[in-house]
Amino acid sequence: MADVEDTQLKNGTFKPGTLLEDGRWRIEFDSMGQVKVPADRLWGAQTQRSLIHFSIGNDHMPVEVYHAYGYVKKAAAIVNERLGRLPKEKADLIVKSASEVIAGKLDENFPLFVWQTGSGTQSNMNVNEVISNRSIQMVNGTLGAQEPVHPNDHVNMSQSSNDTFPTAMHIAAVKEIKDTLLPKATALLTAIENKANQWQHIVKIGRTHLEDATPLTVGQEWSGYAVQIRYALRRVEASLAGLYQLAAGGTAVGTGINAPERFGEEIAKEISELTGHPFITAPNKFEAQGSLDGIVAAHAALRGLAVSLMKIANDIRWLASGPRCGIAELNLPANEPGSSIMPGKVNPTQCEAIVMICIQVIGDDTAVAFAGSQGNFELNAMRPIIINNFLHSARILADGCEKFRIFSIEGTEVNEKRVAGYVQSSLMLVTALSPVIGYDNASKIAHTAQDDGSTLREAATKTGLIDAKKFDEVVNPQNMVGDTTLNFDS
Amino acid sequence: MADVEDTQLKNGTFKPGTLLEDGRWRIEFDSMGQVKVPADRLWGAQTQRSLIHFSIGNDHMPVEVYHAYGYVKKAAAIVNERLGRLPKEKADLIVKSASEVIAGKLDENFPLFVWQTGSGTQSNMNVNEVISNRSIQMVNGTLGAQEPVHPNDHVNMSQSSNDTFPTAMHIAAVKEIKDTLLPKATALLTAIENKANQWQHIVKIGRTHLEDATPLTVGQEWSGYAVQIRYALRRVEASLAGLYQLAAGGTAVGTGINAPERFGEEIAKEISELTGHPFITAPNKFEAQGSLDGIVAAHAALRGLAVSLMKIANDIRWLASGPRCGIAELNLPANEPGSSIMPGKVNPTQCEAIVMICIQVIGDDTAVAFAGSQGNFELNAMRPIIINNFLHSARILADGCEKFRIFSIEGTEVNEKRVAGYVQSSLMLVTALSPVIGYDNASKIAHTAQDDGSTLREAATKTGLIDAKKFDEVVNPQNMVGDTTLNFDS
Amino acid sequence: MADVEDTQLKNGTFKPGTLLEDGRWRIEFDSMGQVKVPADRLWGAQTQRSLIHFSIGNDHMPVEVYHAYGYVKKAAAIVNERLGRLPKEKADLIVKSASEVIAGKLDENFPLFVWQTGSGTQSNMNVNEVISNRSIQMVNGTLGAQEPVHPNDHVNMSQSSNDTFPTAMHIAAVKEIKDTLLPKATALLTAIENKANQWQHIVKIGRTHLEDATPLTVGQEWSGYAVQIRYALRRVEASLAGLYQLAAGGTAVGTGINAPERFGEEIAKEISELTGHPFITAPNKFEAQGSLDGIVAAHAALRGLAVSLMKIANDIRWLASGPRCGIAELNLPANEPGSSIMPGKVNPTQCEAIVMICIQVIGDDTAVAFAGSQGNFELNAMRPIIINNFLHSARILADGCEKFRIFSIEGTEVNEKRVAGYVQSSLMLVTALSPVIGYDNASKIAHTAQDDGSTLREAATKTGLIDAKKFDEVVNPQNMVGDTTLNFDS
Amino acid sequence: MADVEDTQLKNGTFKPGTLLEDGRWRIEFDSMGQVKVPADRLWGAQTQRSLIHFSIGNDHMPVEVYHAYGYVKKAAAIVNERLGRLPKEKADLIVKSASEVIAGKLDENFPLFVWQTGSGTQSNMNVNEVISNRSIQMVNGTLGAQEPVHPNDHVNMSQSSNDTFPTAMHIAAVKEIKDTLLPKATALLTAIENKANQWQHIVKIGRTHLEDATPLTVGQEWSGYAVQIRYALRRVEASLAGLYQLAAGGTAVGTGINAPERFGEEIAKEISELTGHPFITAPNKFEAQGSLDGIVAAHAALRGLAVSLMKIANDIRWLASGPRCGIAELNLPANEPGSSIMPGKVNPTQCEAIVMICIQVIGDDTAVAFAGSQGNFELNAMRPIIINNFLHSARILADGCEKFRIFSIEGTEVNEKRVAGYVQSSLMLVTALSPVIGYDNASKIAHTAQDDGSTLREAATKTGLIDAKKFDEVVNPQNMVGDTTLNFDS
Repeated sequence: MADVEDTQLKNGTFKPGTLLEDGRWRIEFDSMGQVKVPADRLWGAQTQRSLIHFSIGNDHMPVEVYHAYGYVKKAAAIVNERLGRLPKEKADLIVKSASEVIAGKLDENFPLFVWQTGSGTQSNMNVNEVISNRSIQMVNGTLGAQEPVHPNDHVNMSQSSNDTFPTAMHIAAVKEIKDTLLPKATALLTAIENKANQWQHIVKIGRTHLEDATPLTVGQEWSGYAVQIRYALRRVEASLAGLYQLAAGGTAVGTGINAPERFGEEIAKEISELTGHPFITAPNKFEAQGSLDGIVAAHAALRGLAVSLMKIANDIRWLASGPRCGIAELNLPANEPGSSIMPGKVNPTQCEAIVMICIQVIGDDTAVAFAGSQGNFELNAMRPIIINNFLHSARILADGCEKFRIFSIEGTEVNEKRVAGYVQSSLMLVTALSPVIGYDNASKIAHTAQDDGSTLREAATKTGLIDAKKFDEVVNPQNMVGDTTLNFDS
Repeated sequence: MADVEDTQLKNGTFKPGTLLEDGRWRIEFDSMGQVKVPADRLWGAQTQRSLIHFSIGNDHMPVEVYHAYGYVKKAAAIVNERLGRLPKEKADLIVKSASEVIAGKLDENFPLFVWQTGSGTQSNMNVNEVISNRSIQMVNGTLGAQEPVHPNDHVNMSQSSNDTFPTAMHIAAVKEIKDTLLPKATALLTAIENKANQWQHIVKIGRTHLEDATPLTVGQEWSGYAVQIRYALRRVEASLAGLYQLAAGGTAVGTGINAPERFGEEIAKEISELTGHPFITAPNKFEAQGSLDGIVAAHAALRGLAVSLMKIANDIRWLASGPRCGIAELNLPANEPGSSIMPGKVNPTQCEAIVMICIQVIGDDTAVAFAGSQGNFELNAMRPIIINNFLHSARILADGCEKFRIFSIEGTEVNEKRVAGYVQSSLMLVTALSPVIGYDNASKIAHTAQDDGSTLREAATKTGLIDAKKFDEVVNPQNMVGDTTLNFDS
Repeated sequence: MADVEDTQLKNGTFKPGTLLEDGRWRIEFDSMGQVKVPADRLWGAQTQRSLIHFSIGNDHMPVEVYHAYGYVKKAAAIVNERLGRLPKEKADLIVKSASEVIAGKLDENFPLFVWQTGSGTQSNMNVNEVISNRSIQMVNGTLGAQEPVHPNDHVNMSQSSNDTFPTAMHIAAVKEIKDTLLPKATALLTAIENKANQWQHIVKIGRTHLEDATPLTVGQEWSGYAVQIRYALRRVEASLAGLYQLAAGGTAVGTGINAPERFGEEIAKEISELTGHPFITAPNKFEAQGSLDGIVAAHAALRGLAVSLMKIANDIRWLASGPRCGIAELNLPANEPGSSIMPGKVNPTQCEAIVMICIQVIGDDTAVAFAGSQGNFELNAMRPIIINNFLHSARILADGCEKFRIFSIEGTEVNEKRVAGYVQSSLMLVTALSPVIGYDNASKIAHTAQDDGSTLREAATKTGLIDAKKFDEVVNPQNMVGDTTLNFDS
Repeated sequence: MADVEDTQLKNGTFKPGTLLEDGRWRIEFDSMGQVKVPADRLWGAQTQRSLIHFSIGNDHMPVEVYHAYGYVKKAAAIVNERLGRLPKEKADLIVKSASEVIAGKLDENFPLFVWQTGSGTQSNMNVNEVISNRSIQMVNGTLGAQEPVHPNDHVNMSQSSNDTFPTAMHIAAVKEIKDTLLPKATALLTAIENKANQWQHIVKIGRTHLEDATPLTVGQEWSGYAVQIRYALRRVEASLAGLYQLAAGGTAVGTGINAPERFGEEIAKEISELTGHPFITAPNKFEAQGSLDGIVAAHAALRGLAVSLMKIANDIRWLASGPRCGIAELNLPANEPGSSIMPGKVNPTQCEAIVMICIQVIGDDTAVAFAGSQGNFELNAMRPIIINNFLHSARILADGCEKFRIFSIEGTEVNEKRVAGYVQSSLMLVTALSPVIGYDNASKIAHTAQDDGSTLREAATKTGLIDAKKFDEVVNPQNMVGDTTLNFDS
């Protein structure tokens, strides 16, 4: 650290690009003066200053933000050239360098932390500096000279952090959702639907309040899980609409100062083409820069998925509890020894991981909503925390869904013997008698059976309220599960 | 309380409806035995038992839930009769009684608390009992006799709490949103748009990171507020889709046991007609009863509105801070003396109320999401807490929007002199010089002005980087605010 | 509402106290002018103004805040007189009136809402006005004349809302905790300890990850519950230290302007004597008024109790799940019919109520912490939301503990037959073999038993890894539960 | 990934330790069979299985947990030997290997993720396996042979994950708090106290509700900040008591099965000596393993610090707002260029980083409390999420405090001219007139001044309510700030 802090040179008068100490350091400068940066890295003075002032914890700005920023810089250069602002040579260099950023080839040049300026300016400048230097490198220029491509005047042309950082946030969020989360979560959904179909006709006891209730099929139960996830994913997809709106073009405070007319429309169109996602320019840039409401809403949709998954994972681990002293209707794959002390123990570890992931997403959501409420005037300066939590939540949900599917859902089996035994012994089949003998009489039979440990049939006939024949006719679990066709609302 | 606890009669052998102690109490019964209830109330044994066991705090099940339940019971009676299950006389009585419930005429008969059974069964039974007794009353029968209208066998026919309570939750939530929240919030939106239009051309200084930035118009700033609210309300409206799905028809565990075929479709249609809202039967009843995901998502949309409003209210109170030692760009109406000790003090109290309301909604949302994740098997038994928080959040947001509009927004004025003074003195107008003299040179001018307290113009000409004429040409706040047409995305 | 809004008289020139409209209204005034108030109420102009501007939702400032404020006003009058500031006659009147406030005799005169000014000034003025008018009433003066006792100059003497509202918050919070929560929660703790002692020697199967584990006694399990609650209550008690610090004496901004020297020390001493709780003056008034950190920390302690109770209530309802298709180790009291459709169903409703209460407290806590972070400069203007949530959480926890104890814990019974059966059948007794034959061999035995459905004994002897005699010697559940003496850390 | 998945060998019959594929892989085994692990790593089969099943996101179990586990394993070996259970040779090897774990020398051997089994078993086994292999290495044995030191039978002797993982959590948490957080936060506290002392006598205007109020000194204001932090840290320190209690000795379910008598007491004593922190054995192991209440409470204390810091950081950035169009009472160090588009802009970036950190800690706290409530029976299986969030919060708070101190607080300066100007112009000095001419008259003066833009003195004399001489005597800001001695309650 002390080492890093020493890299600011208060009154440095070196020529930019000068190499120091056996070539380990290079001189860079910005409007505040000179700075030494590691010679094997492409970043410049402002990135180095941020490293000095903000090396806090281990949370680094996610690399996905930089890849997204690559699209912004590339699109900006194209539009700036097209609108006659930027010479073709400079634009071409920026486009080439930005393409490398997008492709992840320059990842080691983005070292900054999440806990930095709330506008994300330091990460924007990091990108500007890296693209400047990479462009210089391509023409064998002097790193740090800011010529022929200047980080502010050229790479950042027609832009501000205030409009481009939320633009990059939206691009990164959309890509994470569409490229990673939706595919992985949809695969889980499909796996659950497959299981529901496989178990469509197995009758099991229902449970409400954790207590025995009337029967349903295992397929019906799992169809509920499937539809929970389907609806949760629909809500995630619906939230993309807000993310498709891009702030780019608003520059410093939303008015578009220093950007040419229609820059917003043009760059959104360009980004849309580069990424293949239907981005548009935000109709109102003051909303787009003063708030982060769109991504807050999108995170709420992620949280919705967490809420759904938590219920499902909990159900599954409870249904698999046992093997001898729990419910034990399901057998989960035994992926690893469960205990360091209890030999032969198998635990629902995938479910536990999912539950923890869901809780984390709900916690992340608290941070996101809180941060979303803390904007002031023309800027919500809580951007790094929001994009970091967003990508974190999306990623652990996505990976969690994948592992859960492969290592738990797909290998789950129904313990049919146990399932059938429960149906046989349950008292709540009595419900079918209500329409025949009335709720109060049916209630008496159930209590009798429970009190003396008899079966429902024994208790029913003993009370004289119904004879055995009629009982057998009415109390048939197969007839109590209604239409077993599964409705996945797909 | 002791008094209430004494109302359970373990071995009561009174005739149902018997009056005791000078007519103050009436004998009611259920499947567990006899109970005394206040003679001037229409509830029955199970309601009284709930009062005994669950008088916790001061949180009563919101009356809106009972009004919504009135629709359910009315629709169920109509459908049950139509399908040949319920004699016309009984159906008519239930319909009439339920209509009174809907109209709020029987509100004093719904005394239960929020902290009760997680399925809402006790409130369902409360409705069943009250409709039973009210029906009996209409035919001059004996209260408590459960004839000719039985609370379970007739009022609850083809239903369970498990499917009807979430149905009532959705009805209550939809009505609260559409009848109260949306109108009041939309009125606020309109008031803000009006102000934006009124102030369309007033140029003010922008602020990012709380620091002076480039200018914009007051109208632009307020257009951002308007669009924040518009988008938040669109998200609230989008969330209604989930609430339109009704669980009714699923009965005990989602299979529809004891309900006739197509009961779900029929009752949803009936409720839709009675309420005028486009309710449909939930495609998958296992999802509809095992989860509360739809209302969790709807509350997240309410939270979104809170997140937006908080930013707006904070902006307004900061812009009105002062009057002498703050920003003081806005004058808020002085509705009341602000201090018990400081004479003449005026405070942004409406803003503070809104901020607190928003924080409460965010807190309520934590409870709602948490509760939503805690379902098990065929039932999420966290319903009372969720509907209570939902109606609470919707109500305080609605009323808060109304008061904020009437007593703050509509009377807000711009302190034009102060606003103009800021624009004059700000250093960030220097930004307009960047495209002309470059970022680094512009930066030097700004630092010079700040360091020696000079104006930007003085500093600029002193540096020799630009002459006064060119400066005046470029640095014109009116030209720095872009297109002042307001885009409300309406 | 319209009616209420009409009560502000912009240019009223009535004599204060004039009765209007058949005596239904009375003229009151404040520094902004005249107002009509209901003639049968004692509040004045500022209270009425607050009703006009802040009737939001149904959340009223809790009456406990006013009772606490009674102590503040009483103590202030005593100290002001003692220090020669307030004539004895006026002081006596204030003391008498404040005593009535404390005793709850004037509750109907405190109609204000939670969502008001963030400083609580309106509720402070409500108290000032009511005490002024009640004092006037006592000497047969003219209500509304503000003579001989003026709401600001006399009742509020040496005070500001800024220092007295948090003082009242602390008093109300301390009283709620010590008078209500701790007794009720401690009674629950005792009931749980009693159960633990009663079941000290019943051996049951342990469960980790919901899966069968090695045995313990029911008493040991419940001793864990008891100690969870004990520690949670200790943390609540420890949090009182922060609440004992009173801001009174700091007046407007913490400097004590307009209060005599040592007023803070004196009033704290007086309040301490009046209430019987060890209140002291806050050493640093700027912390005491600029933050609400003390009560935020105290609410975190309430949340701690909620976290503990939630685990316990969940355990109990799972252990009571069944009766035929769940774990069914415990029988809970059947307090009410559980289902409107399933006859004879009994549900763990007290547990569900507790779980919902705990979730609500956790949600309230989010609001409290958020609000606590939003102070600015010399005032945290989020006081009403914090005290409302605090008292709400404390109250529902307290009442919840009481109901849970009486209607669930005290009547809970162990199903000893079931408990013994589980111990017999469990495979995890194999753990005792590890030190004898090694973890890997023991593991083989467990897997063999599970795979072929045999008992552990059968599997063990079949493998030849241990003989039957040795097995019986080592695998004895009674020997596997360690020291069954219960440690309650009391 | 596919590569990793292939490392499980279903029917592997290699000799343990066999090297495959040019020595890149080594054969390891556990009770489920054989596995290939990277030959240059010391972990074994169970670690590898966890990598296969749980590579979710980028969240790795913090290395501090492993260092803490090093103490547990070392202490266990010492105690096991002392109690005659473990041969000295094996104990010595374990002690030496564990010492290397503690020292961080084996960090690259701990690759597992946070989202794993909820008990932390996989991380425990990771430690067991690494210590086993490192011990084997020390005696030139065959890696993977589990001889002479077996991961379960020797390294894990007398232990379970169920008791040792929470033990490691507590050790890691205590060390993080005492070694990192408290020193760094205390340094910040000291820096703030120094500033308060430095500015003890500078009179400034107070602000309540963001509105001008009566004056105080800058020193008084900052003394409030200091005391907020002091109290927050006291609460953090108080929470250590719960963390000092160690579960070790409870083994599988709290009964201590397979551990010798008094193992808990002995290992706690040993850990206490090794670490220098006063750890004790938890009096009730069922509480210690079934709940995580102690660490939930400790995290609430971290959150308390976040709540305090957020207020302070917000105050400072508002007081530094401007430079021309904000409050501008404070000048913060300009550490970096603030804007990519606005030249010369300086932003309160350290404050923003702190605010984001505080919000994150509050979000983490939601996750921690939620997870803390989700224990079941003898285990709370939400451990990894809790320790990960705990260490995360502690670390970012610690580092944040350090950066905030060095790069913001220590370089902050008061803009005395601006501060004095505000005091001069403020109307709230009128408060001093209240005791002289009454609240209502003083109020009139303030309103007059505000309405006609005059000074308070002008308005006061104009009204005739007081003459200029008396005014000057009473309205003296220096006399309105009370006792300027600073009380830090230290």
